[in-house]
Amino acid sequence: MGKKKGRADVRERFGLAVKVRREALGLTQEDLAAAAGIHRTYLSDVERGTRNLSLINVERLAAALQVTMAELFAAVDAG
Amino acid sequence: MGKKKGRADVRERFGLAVKVRREALGLTQEDLAAAAGIHRTYLSDVERGTRNLSLINVERLAAALQVTMAELFAAVDAG
Repeated sequence: MGKKKGRADVRERFGLAVKVRREALGLTQEDLAAAAGIHRTYLSDVERGTRNLSLINVERLAAALQVTMAELFAAVDAG
Repeated sequence: MGKKKGRADVRERFGLAVKVRREALGLTQEDLAAAAGIHRTYLSDVERGTRNLSLINVERLAAALQVTMAELFAAVDAG
């Protein structure tokens, strides 16, 4: 199944959702990466939509962003 | 950040959410795998909680299960 026509790739929509929430919390990439236990360069890639990240890192990011995974994906679905 | 004490791993909770939704739709693993464009053995591993699947396959499975990603993760969060 391909991506929907005219819609950004799920990796890009996820990355934007992370970035928007991170900025709403007033966190830098360094802050969030440390809280989630991931590398800052990895987080930078996630936000740019170039990482096809997996469940375990999705859960870590959601926890560090203080949202449920459902809340994070609501933004991804809407993106 | 480790998994929360006493809580099933996110891979197991995701797998269960997929299985419950698949069965609610009356689909076999073969049906769902074909609809999602993934291998049946891969889907079997997902449902058993042994796959740390990534955003692109999460999106494919949600679409084939006729739910939004947020709806699918609401079940994962609750699991």
